[in-house]
Amino acid sequence: MATVDFMEKLVRLTPATRDQDHIPLLVASLPHTHDRSSAILGRGRDPLPQLLQGIDLLNHAGVGVIAIPCNSSHHWFAQLRERSQAPLLHIAEASVAAVPRSHATRVAIFATRGALLSGFYQRSLQEQGLDYFLPDPDGAQNEVDVCIREVKAGRFNVAGSSLERACVAAAAAGATALIMGCTEIPIASRHADTAGLTLIDSSLELARASVGYALERGWNRPGWDS
Amino acid sequence: MATVDFMEKLVRLTPATRDQDHIPLLVASLPHTHDRSSAILGRGRDPLPQLLQGIDLLNHAGVGVIAIPCNSSHHWFAQLRERSQAPLLHIAEASVAAVPRSHATRVAIFATRGALLSGFYQRSLQEQGLDYFLPDPDGAQNEVDVCIREVKAGRFNVAGSSLERACVAAAAAGATALIMGCTEIPIASRHADTAGLTLIDSSLELARASVGYALERGWNRPGWDS
Repeated sequence: MATVDFMEKLVRLTPATRDQDHIPLLVASLPHTHDRSSAILGRGRDPLPQLLQGIDLLNHAGVGVIAIPCNSSHHWFAQLRERSQAPLLHIAEASVAAVPRSHATRVAIFATRGALLSGFYQRSLQEQGLDYFLPDPDGAQNEVDVCIREVKAGRFNVAGSSLERACVAAAAAGATALIMGCTEIPIASRHADTAGLTLIDSSLELARASVGYALERGWNRPGWDS
Repeated sequence: MATVDFMEKLVRLTPATRDQDHIPLLVASLPHTHDRSSAILGRGRDPLPQLLQGIDLLNHAGVGVIAIPCNSSHHWFAQLRERSQAPLLHIAEASVAAVPRSHATRVAIFATRGALLSGFYQRSLQEQGLDYFLPDPDGAQNEVDVCIREVKAGRFNVAGSSLERACVAAAAAGATALIMGCTEIPIASRHADTAGLTLIDSSLELARASVGYALERGWNRPGWDS
């Protein structure tokens, strides 16, 4: 559903009045890819060969740019980028660029435990001089885990309730903004009161970067095949 | 957006509690394909070469079955099926199979003018001994045209209003059921009162046929790449 959500964002962000104004897309939804978070935590099979197969498939089909609407997969970003002829957009760079800049900003990062261990959000925020907050692994992170799992199972209301409790904990710890750094979380956020936090939707920011990249190059104009 | 809607239906129809329970998908969204309806009406460029390119792309990537969530493209179904190594599911066959069987059933067909001229829905209903109704080309069909066009432009409320007027006309003419035979129409139907007609959503029925095909073959079980 996170892939569907990402595609919908691409379509909505594209200025279009007819089919032919939209951007050509090739979407490889490969759900049998081994769990990325478990692998980063050293508890599951390595998904990198499957991720590379996806990159190869898209390259063979001749795509011009690749966006991966799965945060945890960005643990292997360097290897994927090296393999691909088409450039790759980075979901964390796109998301951190959307954080409001202020000395008072404290950014909570909600993501899988694997993505947090990988640390690419923390590094990206530090490079921008932004303060961040991670949920307590024995507390609010459990709520984030449930939120992600329940979206994958299609139980959006249960997911929203868990997200709500995690947001309350983040706000209590002084967070003013929240990077929803797992593409399942924005789906749950429609079913949650997010405690007044400024929300940064990693899926939306990646979609924005993707559409911007395509429009700059005129890929929404007919003639791609002629 | 019709492609996004179709993908969402595939995901919702798949019994899944985690990523790995879902069905691998390759989605080629090629919006620059010449307008199918215009071409059937003899007023536009032939989209068949582009449709064949799409079939080739999917076959080269090794897909096991192909569904095309665009009704008008089914005008070229025989040529597309002949080109493809993977079998193709037919959207009209899937839709007509979902029509309630009763001697009192009269089925309105809402589709593009091109799809209606092509006649594949009429033939499929006739083969099943079902009575059908087509909107007046100078009346309700204009509302259907507007409905489809406005969904493509992202104006869902306007599209819903047009659909509503077309439904009232169909019900007044004795229709009891409606095949929404263009994959934009179901998106508009969420913004419309459809005059008590039994709705058959061609996109949903194609998604149901696709998921059924995949589940019978176990494509939702891990191991696709090993």
